Amino acid sequence: MHTILQLQQIIQKAIDEKQYPSHPKELYEPISYLMALGGKRLRPVLVLMATDLFAGDIYKAINAALAIETFHNFTLMHDDIMDNAPLRRGKPTVHAKWNQSVAILAGDVMFVESFKLIIQVDATILQQVLNVFNDTAVGVCEGQQIDMNFETAPKVTLADYIEMIRLKTAVLLGGALKIGALIGNANLYDAEKLYDFGVNLGIAFQLQDDILDVYGDPEKFGKQVGGDILANKKTFLLIKALELADEQTLNQLNGYLQNTSISPSEKVSYITAIYNKLNIKDIAQAQMITYAEISLKALNEINAPNERKMMLKEFANMLTKRDN
Amino acid sequence: MHTILQLQQIIQKAIDEKQYPSHPKELYEPISYLMALGGKRLRPVLVLMATDLFAGDIYKAINAALAIETFHNFTLMHDDIMDNAPLRRGKPTVHAKWNQSVAILAGDVMFVESFKLIIQVDATILQQVLNVFNDTAVGVCEGQQIDMNFETAPKVTLADYIEMIRLKTAVLLGGALKIGALIGNANLYDAEKLYDFGVNLGIAFQLQDDILDVYGDPEKFGKQVGGDILANKKTFLLIKALELADEQTLNQLNGYLQNTSISPSEKVSYITAIYNKLNIKDIAQAQMITYAEISLKALNEINAPNERKMMLKEFANMLTKRDN
Repeated sequence: MHTILQLQQIIQKAIDEKQYPSHPKELYEPISYLMALGGKRLRPVLVLMATDLFAGDIYKAINAALAIETFHNFTLMHDDIMDNAPLRRGKPTVHAKWNQSVAILAGDVMFVESFKLIIQVDATILQQVLNVFNDTAVGVCEGQQIDMNFETAPKVTLADYIEMIRLKTAVLLGGALKIGALIGNANLYDAEKLYDFGVNLGIAFQLQDDILDVYGDPEKFGKQVGGDILANKKTFLLIKALELADEQTLNQLNGYLQNTSISPSEKVSYITAIYNKLNIKDIAQAQMITYAEISLKALNEINAPNERKMMLKEFANMLTKRDN
Repeated sequence: MHTILQLQQIIQKAIDEKQYPSHPKELYEPISYLMALGGKRLRPVLVLMATDLFAGDIYKAINAALAIETFHNFTLMHDDIMDNAPLRRGKPTVHAKWNQSVAILAGDVMFVESFKLIIQVDATILQQVLNVFNDTAVGVCEGQQIDMNFETAPKVTLADYIEMIRLKTAVLLGGALKIGALIGNANLYDAEKLYDFGVNLGIAFQLQDDILDVYGDPEKFGKQVGGDILANKKTFLLIKALELADEQTLNQLNGYLQNTSISPSEKVSYITAIYNKLNIKDIAQAQMITYAEISLKALNEINAPNERKMMLKEFANMLTKRDN
């Protein structure tokens, strides 16, 4: 059995050692650049943890783990174009550093690279693993499209929102775990349960992200606190506040959302004050804990020794109790 | 054995019957739209012809043929963004009709769709087919990047150019044929030979395209005659002309390339006159015929009945003797 830190190191080493062709350099340099920007490598670690849960050989899962991380970074490269984002992990995004065409095409090649990695699993599970991988990829794209649609949607319900984050964020965690389970020779029942663990944990993870965006410690939170508020992003917090507000508060809230003359810090503090009045933080945390509990229930139902499950419980705790 | 027309009809029917999810519609409508714009369906027909060559069951190859056509259309969707193209087959491109983010993301989903189709081949050949598919996909992306690099490259040699069109255009014809051959239970020697047939035919096909762009009959050629000249595109014709021109002609040619005050029709007629003086059309046709002959030589070396090869010879003739 391996600790999370050990698995992170194994993944990092594999990423560092991965070589891409040298020509044409406009295509491959952006891939190496983005992959080297770091991050917590949560998704590939989940692949290995799943294999480890069933006492499988984690070294047989490394290419699949790299496939998941490469796929994830491909989506970041394309999402950053769509979001017009100048920075990723504090560094210029690929389309900003090179240009947009490079970011489209290097992203496409990353996507192929992720397929080249995933098809290296044993032939006996290839078809099953590819089905999970493809379904995951479709889900992530659908989630991104629905998220973009929300920007101009007149009304987004909480159910719409949970479905969006399920697709955009959570299915990739579930898919990573299911693939790791299949490599660890888990049966389909256990692999499905682990998928459910991952999806519900992923929803909890995103809700925690929404909370941290407003209530995170600026010292510890890597991003600008209040970024979602400034972007009028329809997060769990805003959707819930719009749902709970009485008429007067609703008018205030809509006023702040549409007001372009107040300063960014005023906008953040006024809207946060409304959230506080409506007790939104507690409600969001309760919702987050509900999803975390559903995920742990699925984990408990898996046929695997408890001591092996401890690592995934620790991981779940790390994600839902994190402050950054 | 099936005629080309029969195979085209089988492909068209399969495309017409293909259903995509209805939600989110911004993601799936552009895919149906682009797939319905038509085209000659050459690439999927090649998959079926290859299966047919080895007396395989072409109905087992239909999903692979759709995978190739879906992949090809995905590359068109993304290339059109990069090329800032307003029209595709006379209709608005996806990024023009919807927006750029939709074209990026719908393209990504099309790419996944192509993988979902290709993995439906028999498990016994899955790994082999996926290797061909992935290598083909990487090649096409590399070719597109090299083509974009040519726009600002100070000098492009004929060898550079042939390598670019091999990647951007020809490997997909080779890959389509090789996959069809594997589905038809061809051995690796024959599958490789058919790949060589496709790649060399693809190069001949692109050279014919270069020739038609300047010397095509405006009535029959679907695109604007002289489009490459107006875009200063470094085609076989221009590269060869720059190579053969004496100092005075070279100065003239470079003058026309850089002159922004002459009218489009003047630019086309002046540069065409230089091509004529240097005999560029004959040289390009000779080069095209050379590649067509190499491709037919590879076809001849395949272990399959001559009467079955006739269809592919007819196809090759159709491509290299076409006027549109």
